[in-house]
Amino acid sequence: MDRKQIAKKTAEVTISYLTFQAMRTVQAQLREVYPVKAVWLGQFSTQGKLQNGEAYLDELMAEDREIALRIMTVRQHLAEEIVEFLPEMVSLGIQEANMNRRRLLLERMTQVQNADEVVHAEERVTGQPEESQSESDSSYPADTTNDPDGADADGE
Amino acid sequence: MDRKQIAKKTAEVTISYLTFQAMRTVQAQLREVYPVKAVWLGQFSTQGKLQNGEAYLDELMAEDREIALRIMTVRQHLAEEIVEFLPEMVSLGIQEANMNRRRLLLERMTQVQNADEVVHAEERVTGQPEESQSESDSSYPADTTNDPDGADADGE
Repeated sequence: MDRKQIAKKTAEVTISYLTFQAMRTVQAQLREVYPVKAVWLGQFSTQGKLQNGEAYLDELMAEDREIALRIMTVRQHLAEEIVEFLPEMVSLGIQEANMNRRRLLLERMTQVQNADEVVHAEERVTGQPEESQSESDSSYPADTTNDPDGADADGE
Repeated sequence: MDRKQIAKKTAEVTISYLTFQAMRTVQAQLREVYPVKAVWLGQFSTQGKLQNGEAYLDELMAEDREIALRIMTVRQHLAEEIVEFLPEMVSLGIQEANMNRRRLLLERMTQVQNADEVVHAEERVTGQPEESQSESDSSYPADTTNDPDGADADGE
């Protein structure tokens, strides 16, 4: 899928999510004045249906026009209030999550390296020659192998 | 939920969707060079897991660190390329979808009204009921009715 298509699909997913939040808002309002209808709306609004906000509204329009129109109005207000913040929140959210995950990986790798150095130090003190295994110790489990090149992944 | 919380959750949903698209991109690349791994990634990446992009990446990190790091890099690139367009695409997307739905509703209501008028006209002037229908022809199929008044709904 090209970038334009991905942007389009991402906007659709965002709109569907705002439609879900608008439904929640309208449901909370109904709970105050018309509790039975609030329960009905909750039962009608399954997660599956809300994956596609437009199809959901089309279906709701046939069931209860007033509620559908209300959700449409609320989602538009919600969008007006939050969309301007989305680019920064999404960019920073991804950057921070990626950075934390890479830092954690680096910490684990450094710990393994440190543990390795301690083992070597103990081996040297007790006179066991392990020098030939300076780069990698094959006795390590596969997923904790200490590979200094792995740090390159952070450069991207 | 207050607006700030809704904005935060919307950003999370958007990030999870970009993580899914990044997975698809990486999967397509793997298909060229390492088809078995591409199949594995597809099986690992269930829709349920991808509802939460961060939990998905944490899990993937334990299974295949290289692929997880690659997906993290790709989603960051995707975000850099598309987030700036999101506010307008989401706002316009909602406005257009709402407008079309309201126009359709108004058209249907006008048809019902016109049909009603036709019945009355036929009752009043038996034999020549068509003159009163200058604006809309009730013989049109429901969803292709041409009604210039429908444009009023666009005002919202």
